[in-house]
Amino acid sequence: TRSKLPENPRSIFAEMTQLAIQHGALNMSQGFPSFPASQELKELASQAILEDHNQYAPMTGLLALRVAISQMFESQHQAFYDPNQEICVTAGATQGIFTAIQATVFKGDEVILFTPAYDCYEPAIKVAGGIPVKIPMRLPDFTIDWDQVRDAITSKTKMIIINSPHNPSGKLMTHEDMLQLEKIAVENDLIVLSDEVYEFMVFDDLEHRSASRYPGLKERSFVMGSFGKTFHVTGWKTGFCLAPPELMKEFLKVHQQVVFCVNQPIQHAIAHYLKQPQHYLDLGEFYQRKRDLFLNLIKDSRFQFTPSESTYFQLLDYSDITDESDLAFAKAITVNHKIASIPISVFMQGRDPKMLRFCFAKEDEELVAAAKILNEL
Amino acid sequence: TRSKLPENPRSIFAEMTQLAIQHGALNMSQGFPSFPASQELKELASQAILEDHNQYAPMTGLLALRVAISQMFESQHQAFYDPNQEICVTAGATQGIFTAIQATVFKGDEVILFTPAYDCYEPAIKVAGGIPVKIPMRLPDFTIDWDQVRDAITSKTKMIIINSPHNPSGKLMTHEDMLQLEKIAVENDLIVLSDEVYEFMVFDDLEHRSASRYPGLKERSFVMGSFGKTFHVTGWKTGFCLAPPELMKEFLKVHQQVVFCVNQPIQHAIAHYLKQPQHYLDLGEFYQRKRDLFLNLIKDSRFQFTPSESTYFQLLDYSDITDESDLAFAKAITVNHKIASIPISVFMQGRDPKMLRFCFAKEDEELVAAAKILNEL
Ligand SMILES: CSCCC(=O)C(=O)O
Ligand SMILES: CSCCC(=O)C(=O)O
Repeated sequence: TRSKLPENPRSIFAEMTQLAIQHGALNMSQGFPSFPASQELKELASQAILEDHNQYAPMTGLLALRVAISQMFESQHQAFYDPNQEICVTAGATQGIFTAIQATVFKGDEVILFTPAYDCYEPAIKVAGGIPVKIPMRLPDFTIDWDQVRDAITSKTKMIIINSPHNPSGKLMTHEDMLQLEKIAVENDLIVLSDEVYEFMVFDDLEHRSASRYPGLKERSFVMGSFGKTFHVTGWKTGFCLAPPELMKEFLKVHQQVVFCVNQPIQHAIAHYLKQPQHYLDLGEFYQRKRDLFLNLIKDSRFQFTPSESTYFQLLDYSDITDESDLAFAKAITVNHKIASIPISVFMQGRDPKMLRFCFAKEDEELVAAAKILNEL
Repeated sequence: TRSKLPENPRSIFAEMTQLAIQHGALNMSQGFPSFPASQELKELASQAILEDHNQYAPMTGLLALRVAISQMFESQHQAFYDPNQEICVTAGATQGIFTAIQATVFKGDEVILFTPAYDCYEPAIKVAGGIPVKIPMRLPDFTIDWDQVRDAITSKTKMIIINSPHNPSGKLMTHEDMLQLEKIAVENDLIVLSDEVYEFMVFDDLEHRSASRYPGLKERSFVMGSFGKTFHVTGWKTGFCLAPPELMKEFLKVHQQVVFCVNQPIQHAIAHYLKQPQHYLDLGEFYQRKRDLFLNLIKDSRFQFTPSESTYFQLLDYSDITDESDLAFAKAITVNHKIASIPISVFMQGRDPKMLRFCFAKEDEELVAAAKILNEL
């Protein structure tokens, strides 16, 4: 069979989680919390099911949920999105990203993305027949060289994909970055896909600069969010896509064919839960405490690190321990020391800065147990 | 913005449901039940949420659910599918269909489908850059002329899409049909996509002939099923895709990028519920009673009909009432008589046999109320 993705491996997340399960390792690889979601949210969903909200939802999502999303963006970013024309609930951010790319990237179009890049962008571009143009971020601080971006733009460039807060580095784009991006996108009439799924996990009084805040970006951007990430329910597969009407129109034409609509009882629950801003505003503090606990416990280990600015991921540099490849080292410590992480070279065409990504969305005692292992490596 | 689906309208289902809501009409348009799912199933799902099965599921679905699906096909069709290589849980059959087409249809490939055709096939083919080749079913009995299919095959033909039980006509493909299809598919080395979402809604001791039963088809077919249809929970958006390993491999490469995985608590609930064959085997009798009730009540109306063989849809021929277009008539009776249905010309390039599709997955008293309206037209 001819393949559209001949080299596409099984996702590293599936692979490392499976290895962790197989070896009974502490799983700090795939990004999901080990602790339960809030009782209130679970009860809302369970109630929605028992109260028979179990048939098709509207194609763009429940109106109450779209209104709640709109209010969230207005209060967080002073950005107004019309619930009836500019918001669509998605079966997770992944589905939103895949759909936006299929809807707007044509055969031969070039799409700029920055590596390390989350692993769903490139195959989605390829399925659309587009050409991924990968620009490496500057190491060790994971910043973008905007002159390099300017140089990479051709008459075929159609889209730039950004991801801030950034997975796997936890790096935030600055106000300056966003202004540069805005200038480039406007001057070259590009579509921007802004993956902001970790929007509320931001630490040390830093600020998440949503594309929705910049008028030149807002009018040309898909903005993707994830309730799975924000509410500790990655298995509920519910997120959203925001876009100006013209882009949303194309998005919906495809969305309607990809899933038609999204799980209705879950939408009911989230629509209620989202109305309380405290439910997402507390997230930064919550994860900052976890990060600090974890990093404090491993400060005397042989790993080097810069504290993550955002997300629930921490990169650890292991070059003082071994010069093995990150994939080999990640597998070895999963099997031999019972701790699983993500090797980041898979997100950056094999470039291997000898760093592993650890997800610290874990119970405190798991972080303690993890530190004990890491301190002995 | 350039569009991949320039002419793609908003789905007729969304349109008619919205019109029904707006005018307080009895909604027999979009296919979903008006009665609740079983208490047992709802409690299973609600429990799965409260018991914290809320993080990512495996990419192909929960093993317990894949095993239950495998057992169902073995007992129903004597067809063995390996849970580890040939089964994937999907976010509804729509997502499975879209994904299978993106995974295997290349630019310029031709895909044969039969009209009237459910409205998600053609746009999915177009998004993949493929060319839909539409063969009209013979009216009034919605059969396929296999010689016409043979004539339509070219060196570019890649796939044939079939849909039995057939939406909107309720027509079942016969054993003879399946043998013809098998011969053509094998001789021309085609992929078959078999949309079987109404597999258990079969009446009058007729038999559903799954593609999985025919060795020549099984080895080259995607078979799609829907728990939303079978268990009265269309809003749970959970279905499945079966395929031989080679096709499944390509399917998964794309599936992983489209949604990564499917709602986990719902999968838990269905995995348990599916273990009791009675939960799906009763469906035919259940809907046959509804069909008979409905048809008996309108037997003296001015509508003409052949009783539906399967699905929860009944076509009614209104040519004795008016020669208006089906779209105009469907809208008029929604607005003026408060009963919504689906005009079928939208599924057959405007060919208009003056038939409306009514979904009889409704409470008995709604069927009585519907008949009262229809008898007065
Ligand atoms: C969809 S599985 C991967 C989850 C995730 O976002 C990550 O681990 O980076
Ligand atoms: C996805 S909405 C349409 C539901 C359906 O299958 C139908 O009404 O034919």
